Amino acid sequence: MDQDNPRIAIFDSGVGGLTVLRELRATFPDADFLYLGDTARVPYGTKSTQTVCRYAVEAATFLQQFDLSAMVVACNSASAVALDDVVTRFPGLPVFGVIAPGAAAAAAASQTGKIGVLGTEGTVRSNAYKQAINAIRRDAVVWQQACPLFVSLAEEGWVTGDVPILVARRYLEPLLEQGIDVVVLGCTHYPLLRQVIQDVVGPDVTVVDSAGPLALALTENRLQGRSREHGLKVFTTDDPARFVAVGESFLGSSLGSVSQISLEPVS
Amino acid sequence: MDQDNPRIAIFDSGVGGLTVLRELRATFPDADFLYLGDTARVPYGTKSTQTVCRYAVEAATFLQQFDLSAMVVACNSASAVALDDVVTRFPGLPVFGVIAPGAAAAAAASQTGKIGVLGTEGTVRSNAYKQAINAIRRDAVVWQQACPLFVSLAEEGWVTGDVPILVARRYLEPLLEQGIDVVVLGCTHYPLLRQVIQDVVGPDVTVVDSAGPLALALTENRLQGRSREHGLKVFTTDDPARFVAVGESFLGSSLGSVSQISLEPVS
Repeated sequence: MDQDNPRIAIFDSGVGGLTVLRELRATFPDADFLYLGDTARVPYGTKSTQTVCRYAVEAATFLQQFDLSAMVVACNSASAVALDDVVTRFPGLPVFGVIAPGAAAAAAASQTGKIGVLGTEGTVRSNAYKQAINAIRRDAVVWQQACPLFVSLAEEGWVTGDVPILVARRYLEPLLEQGIDVVVLGCTHYPLLRQVIQDVVGPDVTVVDSAGPLALALTENRLQGRSREHGLKVFTTDDPARFVAVGESFLGSSLGSVSQISLEPVS
Repeated sequence: MDQDNPRIAIFDSGVGGLTVLRELRATFPDADFLYLGDTARVPYGTKSTQTVCRYAVEAATFLQQFDLSAMVVACNSASAVALDDVVTRFPGLPVFGVIAPGAAAAAAASQTGKIGVLGTEGTVRSNAYKQAINAIRRDAVVWQQACPLFVSLAEEGWVTGDVPILVARRYLEPLLEQGIDVVVLGCTHYPLLRQVIQDVVGPDVTVVDSAGPLALALTENRLQGRSREHGLKVFTTDDPARFVAVGESFLGSSLGSVSQISLEPVS
């Protein structure tokens, strides 16, 4: 067997996309992975469309030099507003965002068509999930909720106990009052709070994470082999120390060595 | 009266420094103010020393073109690690950080010499408050606590009720067990949670905010007049919309017009 493996690049504003990498590694054990976290400018979720597009294009430009089989925009905020910019800039490179797969999974999982979407301010403001769900299922009614505290809770490691439960109740109760039967974790930080969210919404509401459906979407494409390796190379734009400290709980395993790089302005 | 007013520039990673601007406007009603929030790269508190120094120098370089009487580094994280870099780069310009005034106020307010400092990860890691307090008062014992959730709570406007009280208890109880009698609000977001923090620490613990002592430190310097105006000009590095929406609760009044600018790399 002398076949080349696919080389898949993933980018995210920070550590959150490691939850997506985790799923992709399980699905593509022979792939060669590159991961870029833009930790010098994280988070993207509170920033404007224009700024997130600029950052995403800079990140994608750095990664595409590596002769990729596919690129994944793991950050929901970047997927929501910058995917078209990235796709347009690199014709011929398969580029995947997390919104479409998550929206399709939510539309399929809902009985009642009443769907809640949790995301950052930017993702909610973009209406990207709402539009993607309604494109598949016109009868669906979508309620969106920005949950900025979930990011801090996930990064602090406060994922059980009183505080996350109270916070989750405050964010989710207005959605539950609408009778939703599916809730989408529309930010890569939120899977760390999945248990708390499931406890608050109860067993009759399905919690959807985009990472699984995204991995499935990649398997449906024939990714060209690009590498003889099946490793992981991680880059950050700030000093890697904090990324490594926080990131391993997101990835669920060791990160190996992490290199700091600079992203250049792209005209 | 044809005298010139001082022109004071303030920079911060985002909206938090508006709590400092508020205090300075009250102290210097005739001054002409410039405020820069680096909202495209906020927050600084989770970023490395090297990255925060780079950002702070870029911000200071932008502001110093305005013929200033004084520059204030309102962000505690930037004051903690980048003040010397800014001072060295602009000799002749009076540059003020928030750490020294806050540390002096804390050292003076403590009876027991047991002092708690709340700050970002970066501020805590730098030990800047601890060193500044011990430089004034060698007998003081300082405990530091990073409180990342306070930033999200302040920006969400969740400054009363169950959630902030539980979060504040979790951060403060280890300090209270040490018998502190002073706690320093070592991040410009935290004054919005002042009431909750005071309620949790109880009436026997003094809560110190750097903004008042900083304003006093400026009055002790003879600031040269630079402007015939006494207005406010606000700049941000990301789209101003969110800054304006969140910022007015920090400033306690209208922001007027806000201009988006780009910061250039400084070699």
